[in-house]
Amino acid sequence: MVLLIHHPVSAHSRKIRLIMAEKKMYAVLKEEEPWKVSDGLRKLNPAGELPVFIYDGNVIAGVNAISEYLEEAYPQPSLMSKNLCERAEIRRLSEWFDNKFQREVYTYIISEKIYKRYGSVSAPNSRVLTAGYSNLGFHMEYLDWLAERNNYLAGDLFSLADVSAAAQISVIDYLGDVAWNNYPNAKIWYAKVKSRPSFKDILKDNIKGILPSKHYTNLDF
Amino acid sequence: MVLLIHHPVSAHSRKIRLIMAEKKMYAVLKEEEPWKVSDGLRKLNPAGELPVFIYDGNVIAGVNAISEYLEEAYPQPSLMSKNLCERAEIRRLSEWFDNKFQREVYTYIISEKIYKRYGSVSAPNSRVLTAGYSNLGFHMEYLDWLAERNNYLAGDLFSLADVSAAAQISVIDYLGDVAWNNYPNAKIWYAKVKSRPSFKDILKDNIKGILPSKHYTNLDF
Repeated sequence: MVLLIHHPVSAHSRKIRLIMAEKKMYAVLKEEEPWKVSDGLRKLNPAGELPVFIYDGNVIAGVNAISEYLEEAYPQPSLMSKNLCERAEIRRLSEWFDNKFQREVYTYIISEKIYKRYGSVSAPNSRVLTAGYSNLGFHMEYLDWLAERNNYLAGDLFSLADVSAAAQISVIDYLGDVAWNNYPNAKIWYAKVKSRPSFKDILKDNIKGILPSKHYTNLDF
Repeated sequence: MVLLIHHPVSAHSRKIRLIMAEKKMYAVLKEEEPWKVSDGLRKLNPAGELPVFIYDGNVIAGVNAISEYLEEAYPQPSLMSKNLCERAEIRRLSEWFDNKFQREVYTYIISEKIYKRYGSVSAPNSRVLTAGYSNLGFHMEYLDWLAERNNYLAGDLFSLADVSAAAQISVIDYLGDVAWNNYPNAKIWYAKVKSRPSFKDILKDNIKGILPSKHYTNLDF
């Protein structure tokens, strides 16, 4: 049995769900709230982070460790190139969205708006949110620039780079915080990614107590 | 020609230098100050981060992208396992030290003590430093626990997990901030890693204006 411990608000969980859907893998999904790390989760992953991937009693934690594992264990369809340079570019961009975007945008916006709502009694800090939105602008400009140059972010083919970016963007877009009209190339890219069958379940995601933005599920937005 | 743009204070740069030394690769090293991102660096790596690896005009940025590239392009001696589960554990721990330790310890301690010294006029914030030391304690306990269970962090063999951890620890140890006597297993592990020929250049590192701790270069500390 394959089990994925995840949460719809976790961009890293979404990334692994997207990879599994691209590879047509089926798993039992179990939700854990990322703002309230349970002892059970910490036993499986001492980092206390989502997602955790479990199969036949083996536990894999760490978004990069899981995604590289899935690519190695289930190589078809591939989300990687065979060319070493292209692999490096795919990994550079995956790292960018998994870590840099996560640190500079996700943590600021999602932690303030959602984690705080459920995990603590304090209100969102508007200075932190403002910094998050400013960082989001920088990242969207870069995404727009990448999407203008190539069919997909790391080149001609859909890859882990697109999955990593779309996983992050989709959480921010759920809140309606992406000013799509300012980023026409990124918008075309996201419409393409959103139309993939692997994205269907992500568009059905529901974060309790928060309605998705009006255009969240629209393929033509 | 192989060129590595790095800085002795950058743990991610140290990781790549260690991997290259393990694989007996020679590169021209060029220093850039991480607290003052130059336009040249930003052109090579839009993330503005060190290190950057350049060969035959190809540019690779991102600590994970570079280390996976080196392992794929120069597979011997290997710093990875062939077993998929063991690879996942090596990557989980690499991610832990590259990202979690970097975010929770390195950024707090090194940014406050060193980046601020050269990059800005403000003094170190003692609350940030205190948080960094508290996080360091948590990470050292985990390192000690890992080192007690196995010969090396991810199992019997020296791997990218050890390189990632030692790269981070070595910067903190330069400042003398590791209370080694509290972590006897981590200490034995670090002595082993420090004794490797690949570590020689790291122990010769000099961060301008800051003397290394007395035991920094001692193999028996």
